[in-house]
Amino acid sequence: MSKKLTMPEVAALFEGAKDIVIVSHINPDGDALGSTLALAAGLRKKGKNVVISIDDEISSYYNFMPGIDQFVRFKQGDVINADLLVINDASSLDRIGVAAECVKAPMLNIDHHVSNTGFADYLYLDVDAAATGEVIFRLFKELNIEIDLQMAFCLYVAIVTDCGYFKYSNTTPHCMNCAAELLAIGVEPDVVSDFLEMKSRDDIKLLSKVLETLAFEFNGRIATIEISHENYNPDIATDSFIHYPRYIDGVEVAMMFKGVEKDVTRVSMRSRRLDVSKIALSFGGGGHKRASGCTIYKDMAEAKKIMLASIVDEMGNCNG
Amino acid sequence: MSKKLTMPEVAALFEGAKDIVIVSHINPDGDALGSTLALAAGLRKKGKNVVISIDDEISSYYNFMPGIDQFVRFKQGDVINADLLVINDASSLDRIGVAAECVKAPMLNIDHHVSNTGFADYLYLDVDAAATGEVIFRLFKELNIEIDLQMAFCLYVAIVTDCGYFKYSNTTPHCMNCAAELLAIGVEPDVVSDFLEMKSRDDIKLLSKVLETLAFEFNGRIATIEISHENYNPDIATDSFIHYPRYIDGVEVAMMFKGVEKDVTRVSMRSRRLDVSKIALSFGGGGHKRASGCTIYKDMAEAKKIMLASIVDEMGNCNG
Repeated sequence: MSKKLTMPEVAALFEGAKDIVIVSHINPDGDALGSTLALAAGLRKKGKNVVISIDDEISSYYNFMPGIDQFVRFKQGDVINADLLVINDASSLDRIGVAAECVKAPMLNIDHHVSNTGFADYLYLDVDAAATGEVIFRLFKELNIEIDLQMAFCLYVAIVTDCGYFKYSNTTPHCMNCAAELLAIGVEPDVVSDFLEMKSRDDIKLLSKVLETLAFEFNGRIATIEISHENYNPDIATDSFIHYPRYIDGVEVAMMFKGVEKDVTRVSMRSRRLDVSKIALSFGGGGHKRASGCTIYKDMAEAKKIMLASIVDEMGNCNG
Repeated sequence: MSKKLTMPEVAALFEGAKDIVIVSHINPDGDALGSTLALAAGLRKKGKNVVISIDDEISSYYNFMPGIDQFVRFKQGDVINADLLVINDASSLDRIGVAAECVKAPMLNIDHHVSNTGFADYLYLDVDAAATGEVIFRLFKELNIEIDLQMAFCLYVAIVTDCGYFKYSNTTPHCMNCAAELLAIGVEPDVVSDFLEMKSRDDIKLLSKVLETLAFEFNGRIATIEISHENYNPDIATDSFIHYPRYIDGVEVAMMFKGVEKDVTRVSMRSRRLDVSKIALSFGGGGHKRASGCTIYKDMAEAKKIMLASIVDEMGNCNG
């Protein structure tokens, strides 16, 4: 298990390091990207040499984020010497790809996922934070790093992504006050939302197709949508599609099945009460109690059957 | 023109009144309803007799709001004597229906719309407030009224409605800090969003149909959607539909046309830069620079022609 650190101890670890590598999780979202970009920018202000890496494609949807082209991708066999390897916003080692093998440095994991497996040497875990971006915001205060507009922008994206634009239960007064401070620095809320909400005509076409797949199971308590492999396009951001089944009257668990390859199905789950992170974790995924995901190495029909059985089983056990 | 009051003067007016009528605007939204319900509850805590009224149907979508069944509807010829008539969240007299004729009392208008016409005896106008709910929040502080959970819930609904869940440019640090305080009182963000986002299967069916009407004008700078009179159902909340055309790449003005009657078309407009409140106002409507609406007493095809001409004209003048 990891040694759990306090915020001052985390700050001391950063103060003592010169060459720092920060990696975040595969299938990166706004929190992974935003909190990593902000942390890198902040540490550079303190004179640190920082490399940032994600072992996955980054959707062009995130091209608007300042510094997004700084992400590098390590190859198997690379050897990178550093003073500190920061694993940012990732709850388990398999979520970061090859970086753990390539980077020769003590591992500090900064995270907010309740499903964190305690894999790193050092861990700062705040499960009450809505986003890792919120943790980085506090770290900057601890390290006396002034948050400039670009950093504020990245942190704001991180926070709004992971609290579902202040709609999820993880939205706390602290989370909102952080966001308010970032706005006071100069972040324009409509500019951020214009980027995050922006869709192409193709996105809306895909949404129409996906809404047609809406189906109900277990007396309407489970709703599913599908993005078939034929319709799948990695350049179309589909994360928000799950809101449609999630917010239908009577639905307790919403699931989206995405055929990323013929025999690889990515599953997203949203729930009102059920702890879906347990189910995601049992299939090698991760996330939060009410918003989790995993990847099933089966075609969509098979993946759907497996996941539905799991959810129905869990709902039966919990009586909803 | 109205006599403009300071917040302490507004508070003094309330302190001096015993029988108070509060009315808000027709086609009521979450801010109209939430800020009115909260204000009524707060004033009752101070021993005031309060009647609340809206001269319109209230969508069943808002049934979740505590106290929603308290709204009464006056009839032409009714005579209601009161010490104070509060016109809440309405920018012009024609937005409140018959109340102005029925209620015999000095008029205090509390509002945040830039299009306010200064029609009342007294006016408290804060155009920097994202919502009238934010103004009422401050009024409670001035009047030393403790905000209980139900009031906080109503104010939270008011605020999130009018700042587009913190996505519009009117979202300020102050607005967010208010929301944070309301959460600290006990408002559960996910419970509010579950209510506000909740849709029926029919809603999603209607959304599918409406997305099929998506059309582009003026080189893709204007996007429109339509809810035909045949598809129109007052029990389906369609306010959010306008987000689809609004957030398409390249679109500067989004319009939704709703055939509420065969020859009555309700128009909603959202823009990125253009001041659409001017256009709405010129057709007897109201709203904010980037989010306005009006009603055209024509069928949909005719209403669309008229509004498009207006927008194109205005965009031409402003060069976008």
